[in-house]
Amino acid sequence: METLLLNSADVNENAKMADLIPAIEDAFAAYERGDAQMPPKSYIDLPQYNGDFRSMPAYLDAGEWDAAGIKWVNVHTDNNDKYDLPTVLGTMIYSDPKNAFPLAIMDGTELTMLRTGAAAAVATDHLAVEDATSMGIIGAGVQSYTQLQAISTIRPIDEVVISDLDEERVAAFIDAFDDTFDVRAGTISEAASCDVLSTVTPVESPIVSKSDVGEHTHINAMGADAEGKHELADQILLDAKLVIDDYEQTTHSGEINVPWSEGILSDEDIYGEIGEIVVGEKDGRIGSDGVTVFDSTGLAIQDVAAAHVVYEHAAENENGYPFDLIGLNQ
Amino acid sequence: METLLLNSADVNENAKMADLIPAIEDAFAAYERGDAQMPPKSYIDLPQYNGDFRSMPAYLDAGEWDAAGIKWVNVHTDNNDKYDLPTVLGTMIYSDPKNAFPLAIMDGTELTMLRTGAAAAVATDHLAVEDATSMGIIGAGVQSYTQLQAISTIRPIDEVVISDLDEERVAAFIDAFDDTFDVRAGTISEAASCDVLSTVTPVESPIVSKSDVGEHTHINAMGADAEGKHELADQILLDAKLVIDDYEQTTHSGEINVPWSEGILSDEDIYGEIGEIVVGEKDGRIGSDGVTVFDSTGLAIQDVAAAHVVYEHAAENENGYPFDLIGLNQ
Repeated sequence: METLLLNSADVNENAKMADLIPAIEDAFAAYERGDAQMPPKSYIDLPQYNGDFRSMPAYLDAGEWDAAGIKWVNVHTDNNDKYDLPTVLGTMIYSDPKNAFPLAIMDGTELTMLRTGAAAAVATDHLAVEDATSMGIIGAGVQSYTQLQAISTIRPIDEVVISDLDEERVAAFIDAFDDTFDVRAGTISEAASCDVLSTVTPVESPIVSKSDVGEHTHINAMGADAEGKHELADQILLDAKLVIDDYEQTTHSGEINVPWSEGILSDEDIYGEIGEIVVGEKDGRIGSDGVTVFDSTGLAIQDVAAAHVVYEHAAENENGYPFDLIGLNQ
Repeated sequence: METLLLNSADVNENAKMADLIPAIEDAFAAYERGDAQMPPKSYIDLPQYNGDFRSMPAYLDAGEWDAAGIKWVNVHTDNNDKYDLPTVLGTMIYSDPKNAFPLAIMDGTELTMLRTGAAAAVATDHLAVEDATSMGIIGAGVQSYTQLQAISTIRPIDEVVISDLDEERVAAFIDAFDDTFDVRAGTISEAASCDVLSTVTPVESPIVSKSDVGEHTHINAMGADAEGKHELADQILLDAKLVIDDYEQTTHSGEINVPWSEGILSDEDIYGEIGEIVVGEKDGRIGSDGVTVFDSTGLAIQDVAAAHVVYEHAAENENGYPFDLIGLNQ
């Protein structure tokens, strides 16, 4: 038995959105049913390096399959300038739950982008209008690409508006997608009036106002991942059908954390968790709904579910590099 | 930049006890000074597989070097019978604290055995008589080997008594060491009357009684790693100079957990933590001391310190397999 090593290209190759989205949906359902274990993220803060490490272990039983693993991930905000490295670097260990054998070790950075896109797609599938053809994206960084890839898998997206202050990043995004979509640069307002909007910025002060948003827009608020961050005006959150991925994480570090901790937004303003909608306990979009919002912080069960998809396909396709980590063959 | 993959043989090759023991001592000192971060171990319990997973992240700053990483480890008690796999399988991610680059991924099973031996050696160095020449070991499993390797590095051990009910394991142990030491099979009492004793069994009911132990024996109680486990009679612990690795861990799952939770042993019976002795805040053995005990549960900072030693030597010796996990070279 060997451990399969999968780099970023292998992860990308083996996580097709059509496979990943149902797996992430299964993970949300398992979590809602109580068939998942997800200890709180634990943090190591290193202010001397302007960074931190986070450990995200999880197990989930989706019925037809179960999976366990841990993602070790960081945020080091000086990485780009000082070391020519991404701010966030993840490493995932994917283990067989029945005997703990490390089936695979894979790049967690690519995995995070893909599973985050897939989570937005699950929410969009339940909350956006059925015939959504236009999509706005605010923030043209690394996360923007998988938002479009994932959401266009579950809705007939044709028109795409990308909004970012950095023209180079906008040009790169357009270049990547203009063969497939009618994609153009636009203002925040132009992006926010589309049928679906994904916000993927690290801002600490809202950049989308209530008047920017379309009447039936579904918004995936993906950017906030730490205390103090939020992208959407409070009034959008208060008026919308507001769905979260996890109560503990979103009130601590999600899009709602600032208005919630200030008492502007209360628990009654939260419609439910995405898992409740996935299992059918609560409705997704219904006829009378206007704006809907999905507050996504990213859960360890998403990483484990995504790693499951990657490993199964990589093993089948004989991708990756098998390595005798434990020394069983010696 | 590539990530160095190090299997069990590479770990063994690059963790010489003479280097490892001072690094583990540095880790205990950093922890005592408050220069370490070690979030509580988090557990995923899988009763359906008779197993669990544990995540052990840590950072430490030893002054001349600092190090960060996480060990993902398990206990699956049926592994031997059902899967021909070790009960415990560990994987260690060793990261650069300044930018979180995963410098190495290494076998954590071999690493655990080595760092556990080194921890016993640190305690033995401070607590055993200076001219300790005899060593007893109770339990001839995988952990017994590194106990002798480590402790013979810091004391002039010549005579070794190995005690185990399993004759095959005893024979294998003797075979491994009889070129170097005067090693023989013996009773628990013969092992426990040596200058140094290490107990490395998983028993839940004490097997060493007070009368077995020599007048000045230093005991490393290494076996207990879960609630309900203990190897030494309560009276040994009550009468000894009792040193622990960490208050939270030992009262929860170390040698003292049973008598402590029953109220037989109180906080006043604990002399101190090994870190306090290492930094000189408390004395190690003094002239009037009789039996001393070190209760070791194993700390995440030991894994990180050991990984530091392994990585530095492996990089220098160009050992291991460099792998572009993150895809920076693509």
